[in-house]
Amino acid sequence: MFLSNIVEKLKKGKSGYIASTIFDDVIITNAASIENASSGQISFLEDNNILKEYISFTKTTAIILNNNNSIIEKLHKNSISTIVVNNPRIAFSEVLDIFDYKLKFEEITDGSAIINETSKINKGCYIGPNVFIGENTKIGKNNYIFPGVTILDNVEIGDNNIIHPNCVIYQNTKIKDNCIINSNSAIGSEGFGFIPDKGKWIKMPQTGGVIINNQVEIGSNCCIDRPAVGNTEIGEGTKIDNLVQIGHGVRIGKNCAFASQVGIAGGAIIGNGVILAGQVGVNNRVKVGNNVIASSKCGIHCDINEGEIVSGFPAMKNKSWLKSSTIFKKLPELAKKLRQLDKK
Amino acid sequence: MFLSNIVEKLKKGKSGYIASTIFDDVIITNAASIENASSGQISFLEDNNILKEYISFTKTTAIILNNNNSIIEKLHKNSISTIVVNNPRIAFSEVLDIFDYKLKFEEITDGSAIINETSKINKGCYIGPNVFIGENTKIGKNNYIFPGVTILDNVEIGDNNIIHPNCVIYQNTKIKDNCIINSNSAIGSEGFGFIPDKGKWIKMPQTGGVIINNQVEIGSNCCIDRPAVGNTEIGEGTKIDNLVQIGHGVRIGKNCAFASQVGIAGGAIIGNGVILAGQVGVNNRVKVGNNVIASSKCGIHCDINEGEIVSGFPAMKNKSWLKSSTIFKKLPELAKKLRQLDKK
Amino acid sequence: MFLSNIVEKLKKGKSGYIASTIFDDVIITNAASIENASSGQISFLEDNNILKEYISFTKTTAIILNNNNSIIEKLHKNSISTIVVNNPRIAFSEVLDIFDYKLKFEEITDGSAIINETSKINKGCYIGPNVFIGENTKIGKNNYIFPGVTILDNVEIGDNNIIHPNCVIYQNTKIKDNCIINSNSAIGSEGFGFIPDKGKWIKMPQTGGVIINNQVEIGSNCCIDRPAVGNTEIGEGTKIDNLVQIGHGVRIGKNCAFASQVGIAGGAIIGNGVILAGQVGVNNRVKVGNNVIASSKCGIHCDINEGEIVSGFPAMKNKSWLKSSTIFKKLPELAKKLRQLDKK
Repeated sequence: MFLSNIVEKLKKGKSGYIASTIFDDVIITNAASIENASSGQISFLEDNNILKEYISFTKTTAIILNNNNSIIEKLHKNSISTIVVNNPRIAFSEVLDIFDYKLKFEEITDGSAIINETSKINKGCYIGPNVFIGENTKIGKNNYIFPGVTILDNVEIGDNNIIHPNCVIYQNTKIKDNCIINSNSAIGSEGFGFIPDKGKWIKMPQTGGVIINNQVEIGSNCCIDRPAVGNTEIGEGTKIDNLVQIGHGVRIGKNCAFASQVGIAGGAIIGNGVILAGQVGVNNRVKVGNNVIASSKCGIHCDINEGEIVSGFPAMKNKSWLKSSTIFKKLPELAKKLRQLDKK
Repeated sequence: MFLSNIVEKLKKGKSGYIASTIFDDVIITNAASIENASSGQISFLEDNNILKEYISFTKTTAIILNNNNSIIEKLHKNSISTIVVNNPRIAFSEVLDIFDYKLKFEEITDGSAIINETSKINKGCYIGPNVFIGENTKIGKNNYIFPGVTILDNVEIGDNNIIHPNCVIYQNTKIKDNCIINSNSAIGSEGFGFIPDKGKWIKMPQTGGVIINNQVEIGSNCCIDRPAVGNTEIGEGTKIDNLVQIGHGVRIGKNCAFASQVGIAGGAIIGNGVILAGQVGVNNRVKVGNNVIASSKCGIHCDINEGEIVSGFPAMKNKSWLKSSTIFKKLPELAKKLRQLDKK
Repeated sequence: MFLSNIVEKLKKGKSGYIASTIFDDVIITNAASIENASSGQISFLEDNNILKEYISFTKTTAIILNNNNSIIEKLHKNSISTIVVNNPRIAFSEVLDIFDYKLKFEEITDGSAIINETSKINKGCYIGPNVFIGENTKIGKNNYIFPGVTILDNVEIGDNNIIHPNCVIYQNTKIKDNCIINSNSAIGSEGFGFIPDKGKWIKMPQTGGVIINNQVEIGSNCCIDRPAVGNTEIGEGTKIDNLVQIGHGVRIGKNCAFASQVGIAGGAIIGNGVILAGQVGVNNRVKVGNNVIASSKCGIHCDINEGEIVSGFPAMKNKSWLKSSTIFKKLPELAKKLRQLDKK
């Protein structure tokens, strides 16, 4: 796509277009980071970006950036075209969409797919090789079901979803619209419910279901368990990374983001806009308020109020944790000083 | 099922039936939590249950509960039927079993399954679509092998097991009777054995196997590795949640329960009745005694005696950890106080 | 294999053969640990091995060990044959290779495999049942593709690789030669890239790829994500255990070893020879120098210099962490002592 066409596209986008300077209206073949870009490529730079050191060396053809005059001047001296926007990252995502690999949503059911006669599939769906669909399952329009997916009985899938290879969707799961489930994930798998009885474990049947609301994305190798009764539910727009565990009966709000290897134990209630960094754990039945942020490896063992930033285990306010952690490193000195004072 | 029939079933069950009061012998269509139940449903309440506040508002038809007269009276005033038992949770599991989704154990081998002619499958097995079974594998009676399962050579599977979609069972694995392996788990996968040699890694072949004893349940996306020699073994009645790693040569006792994302490194020996909460790690070759409980995120780096409750990393007695953690939060104050004393 | 033939094999191997004493040149049927071995088996013992106590009791026929005269004498008194080498563990790996289960690299494409006509597969490959291969994918010589593997479009796979059941290999992935990818792993899955915008998340398309260099081994249920631009890359000879997350754009050096449940966030750069123990986390964009060792559960939140050994969270030098952790256990005493001093 010609650089001028990219500019036109960005003008219509969400990044807040401000201005552009094109030195040579060439065809842009690809996008790359500023440090690795070569001629014919487009890059982006943010105000807080440590890659600014590369602006003298980069071989990129065009850079999307904030309205930073000193940097723009330097780039123009090197005849690098500039596109100035309020949010370069959003602009870059719109450019990447041009070059992204696109799935072909053709209406095909592969001959090797096995679909129970009691299940219904609507128009525009791609059903890949070796897909298995059980009884009384309803699949809406324009879904892309990759090879090897197993969808069991009584599942409801809305429209425009993408289910990646080898996922397993269990009975009583409802996936609404525009969701993405990445490969090897299990949605609606059996909750871990056992009752101790005389040194053994009695199984609590998990008769509930899972509800995945609109625009939810779930990573690869994730597990979203169904509860004994009721539903495990993931709110609209929430994004979940790989290898994440969502226990039985957990309720998650809208527009959360959970990084890889997060684990949320059964019955926890997570608000809207909650951000959990990598390897965070949340204990069972804990309530986490709206817009809470937990830094990596944090262990949330009790309720957290709206808007708090927490760290460490047990979770505490991030600022306190930073201070306490600094002193933790100095504990041997402290203990020595205390012994000295004690002797006096 | 009529409420009176449910009462009859519970009388024959394991929950310790005491008494019941039925206001209206209606058909119970489903079970639900006391807060979400509607008319025609049945719920349960435990003495330590925070849901007691709902007893004035619940729309449930019947409640299973302990012999708590004041609560029973309140419920009867609202014409809610009661079933009094010693263990309401066990009674509820018996009720849920009525409403639970049941697999049909029909003797069918799907036409798309590929089974090597040297392998034997006994009576009553369901072998789903796209199942692959390698050479010299023996499968007992009444097993349910879901679609997409791969069972390699020289595997022995007993009776009445359920193996969920897309599991992989490697050579030299023995699964005994009445086990459940949930989806996308790898049983008997190659142990992580490498020998450092001049900056590179030499592979230690993993020629051993895995033994899964009776009544073991394993979650989704778990890995149970086989060792270089001998066996990795999971004791009878042990229950394992999702995304758990069991390293090569680990030996686990009977009736343990491991929560999600637990990792047990190679050669560790875990006793009977051990409970490991979410994200607990156990170092290689460590011995964990019978009935040890480790709280979430605990890192067990050395042997733990029978019956201990441990927390933190490195693991310490839970009570000490709670005290130390409380003081950890106050470390900045402590350090300040110490500086003040030092100046005097 | 006769014991004398095993000795001959070890003489040609890499373990540094020194001497051997054979009491009875029997057929060795298998290998076992010194504690579990029975007659006709071979074992090994290292100088630092806690299993030395078993040398009086072992029923093994032959032991591979270091040049330790006192132990050798004791074994000879019990008529146990000995093979003395510099590195018994390497010798044992060479012996295990004799008894290891071998894949048959026959040139077969199973009839149920679905391979797009635009893709090319070279000589000597085994393509198992229900394998799916998309468009424009190139597969080299002598690869073993297990049942249920999904390989999407524009993938390049070199020679002599083994891809275990139900793995998913995404577009733009390059796997070079002699690699092993264990079951249920996702290579080239979509990086977790979202931009916050007015309380919602805008998706950053992940147009990049993944490069897996020669001799890399990846465990079961792992995720290696592709980035927005450029490549996620794993260096030659690096070994990765089960349930590991490698974020988008991560670059990993040569001959690293990562234990199970390690998580490396997006954009981190890991040097050569880095060892990460179980459940270690590395924050995004962090640089970890060559030959760094991080002990289990360590959280690496900032750059680590070459050769350091780090522990804890936030990561600190291992020696300091050991000292601070010891004092952490005594914090209640310290606080009490401080209160006492303060009162004086």
